[in-house]
Amino acid sequence: MPSTLSPEKTADPPKFVRFTNGRVVQGSDFVSSDVWVDSVAGTICKAPSQSLDTEAVEIVDLQGKILSPGFIDVQINGAFGFDFSNTDCVHDSTKFQRELHELNQRLLETGTTSYLPTMTSQFSQTYHHALKFLGPTGASRRTETGAESLGAHCEGPFFAHTQKGCHSPEAILSLGNTSEPSLLIQVYGEKNLKANHHVKMVTLAPERDGALDSIRMLKEWGIIASIGHTAATYEQAVLGVKAGSPMVTHLFNAMNQLHHREPGVFGLIASSKDRVFDERVDLADDGRPYFGIIADGIHLHPASIRLAYGAHPEGLILITDAVMFMGMPDGSYEWTNGQRTVKKGMTLMLEGTNTLAGSGIDLLSCVNNFMKWTGCSIPDAIRAVTSTPATMLGVSGSKGFLQVGADADLLILEDDYTNGSAALAINEVWKFGRRVIAAAK
Amino acid sequence: MPSTLSPEKTADPPKFVRFTNGRVVQGSDFVSSDVWVDSVAGTICKAPSQSLDTEAVEIVDLQGKILSPGFIDVQINGAFGFDFSNTDCVHDSTKFQRELHELNQRLLETGTTSYLPTMTSQFSQTYHHALKFLGPTGASRRTETGAESLGAHCEGPFFAHTQKGCHSPEAILSLGNTSEPSLLIQVYGEKNLKANHHVKMVTLAPERDGALDSIRMLKEWGIIASIGHTAATYEQAVLGVKAGSPMVTHLFNAMNQLHHREPGVFGLIASSKDRVFDERVDLADDGRPYFGIIADGIHLHPASIRLAYGAHPEGLILITDAVMFMGMPDGSYEWTNGQRTVKKGMTLMLEGTNTLAGSGIDLLSCVNNFMKWTGCSIPDAIRAVTSTPATMLGVSGSKGFLQVGADADLLILEDDYTNGSAALAINEVWKFGRRVIAAAK
Repeated sequence: MPSTLSPEKTADPPKFVRFTNGRVVQGSDFVSSDVWVDSVAGTICKAPSQSLDTEAVEIVDLQGKILSPGFIDVQINGAFGFDFSNTDCVHDSTKFQRELHELNQRLLETGTTSYLPTMTSQFSQTYHHALKFLGPTGASRRTETGAESLGAHCEGPFFAHTQKGCHSPEAILSLGNTSEPSLLIQVYGEKNLKANHHVKMVTLAPERDGALDSIRMLKEWGIIASIGHTAATYEQAVLGVKAGSPMVTHLFNAMNQLHHREPGVFGLIASSKDRVFDERVDLADDGRPYFGIIADGIHLHPASIRLAYGAHPEGLILITDAVMFMGMPDGSYEWTNGQRTVKKGMTLMLEGTNTLAGSGIDLLSCVNNFMKWTGCSIPDAIRAVTSTPATMLGVSGSKGFLQVGADADLLILEDDYTNGSAALAINEVWKFGRRVIAAAK
Repeated sequence: MPSTLSPEKTADPPKFVRFTNGRVVQGSDFVSSDVWVDSVAGTICKAPSQSLDTEAVEIVDLQGKILSPGFIDVQINGAFGFDFSNTDCVHDSTKFQRELHELNQRLLETGTTSYLPTMTSQFSQTYHHALKFLGPTGASRRTETGAESLGAHCEGPFFAHTQKGCHSPEAILSLGNTSEPSLLIQVYGEKNLKANHHVKMVTLAPERDGALDSIRMLKEWGIIASIGHTAATYEQAVLGVKAGSPMVTHLFNAMNQLHHREPGVFGLIASSKDRVFDERVDLADDGRPYFGIIADGIHLHPASIRLAYGAHPEGLILITDAVMFMGMPDGSYEWTNGQRTVKKGMTLMLEGTNTLAGSGIDLLSCVNNFMKWTGCSIPDAIRAVTSTPATMLGVSGSKGFLQVGADADLLILEDDYTNGSAALAINEVWKFGRRVIAAAK
């Protein structure tokens, strides 16, 4: 088992690290070139031009293992007993921050080096208190922080009431009728949206009154509006993309089913060679949106995942949609807004209902399921949790790619084929150029 | 307007025809090579090795126009006022044959040079009488026959009762429980299935009792079992493919909608890189089935067509699903089994219901819609009505490809871009090496 290193063990490493003799993920391929890291700056750097003292360089012999960017999870509601929406943020912020810090350490073990802490639909008080702890944490470049927040994902509360999923119905709000998105500000708090950029993504239903204006406003503020928990028709969803949405939240889940004469949101990811989205030159592949996929074997049938991946491979982003019970034993647990969740194996349901309440899976397991069900290559599966989400989030300069200047958030992975398809295991995790999870001895 | 030539005008042409100076459809490309036709044999031939008398060669200067294989429609129930299931076959077979002959002349005008005359669900008496007139007509190689039957398509009556579409509920039968497909023989007639090979394809629901054994038996007889009018789950549909079905009848229509946890028949065309269909080495693309698509703008939303084409481009076969009212004026018409159909523009509905009753579209219009909605190239659209159906039907040696030895069923097409995407128009039609529709002067 890999193990988390205590901070003192990570102190004062050699200035440079040279990863050699491995398979380095580059797009859809492996390459065999060395990767150099400047462990002081915490970034990937060019190979130094002059020869260096032995003490200044740590050589990591990968022995054929895989070097990958750290994984990015754009939708995770909590894990290891901690919920990003828990109301300790109001009543006991010290406890909230301490447990958040612990989660960030544990998350590294799953390969997730950066993520969007995701809040389910809440009353505004909770947003106002929680979001200030959930904003981006990368500026300090402290390895000790653990998994890094790239900003919060507010999944709600501007949903279709018919597609609320496991979210508390009392918390679901309508957007206003006016073009002034005053309700966004009222609910999330102005500072969280604008001055401090604590919020990176908002999931909303584009068919609600005022939603298109809100999408435009969020885009102006540098916040991603993702289409989800929606009863949108295909045409309504197209308007959401045209207004500025580059993303679909957990495709298939909490939206209308495809009907062949009314394909709904699923229709968005069909090749739009008729150039529906001509104006969205910022999006790859004819302006089609990116989309999240929960590959836990419970939310979606493998054939649905294959259909979506076949339709738009460049757009697929694996997400966990994990909740706080990920990594915990089976049982009945108290959740947010007075609701209870029953965990049985990997399945999480709202107590007394047939409604799925998020997942209990980690991102590495999603990658392994995805390879098994689609037969895609290891680099292509890794793209769905690294370069694709980084590009969608607009952080491709620093995250998701093994390129000079990017943050040295790295994984060393081993591959195993004993079950007929590739399965990856985590060997080491590096954050900002320092080893934070060491290989088992 | 092109016009049908009378038989005397097609008599005694030069032995060879050389098509030159055109764009020749080859797979997904155009090539500029000449195509030579032996008009006596009715086939595409090699360029003669010695020089020929001027009189022995007709040179067709295509002047940049497109040379395509003739179109193949694997699902057409009738057209121009004639229904392949009409009961004249029982009571007045002379009239039935005369009207069938007239239809075969008219069908050439739409670019369809060969097809599967398709019967809706009928009582056995109708099958017994009609099928002997609907079997293959190519053996005589007579140009005068018009559009050529490649054998009948029996669309029914072994359907899911919940997915009968516009078919008469009284005619829908269950398959028996025994592995002996005696009911197939009883319903269609033994000679039609075995000795005379009048039947080329049967659409059935694979989840019905005995259906898998019937699929196996049909395959043994050289008859294609196509999955359709079905309530099959994904797993039940997989069993149908494993039993021998290579085809899905009008994908999306008359089957369960995709649910993301139960994708149904649509799931079959997802890339099966997990090798579900390993045993079907006879099928292209990991053993996924071919599938029919009705591109009339009524049966399916363009985005649904884009999703299906994106998932499995090699498998898509455009079909008209046309009924006898194609090419006729709007109105209320008597149909088979005592039912009535209302035609309004391109829409055909069972009278007094919301059930679509086939289409009123021709295959060329399907090709043009398909290009408009998917943005695919002209050769790729043409594949969906030529090489792909020919390969599915197992007749790729004689139909669907412009290759030496193949039947010289040819179209000269003009392309027009005035509406922003390519639209094809028929300039000339050739059948068995003879011009049967001449270009307008």
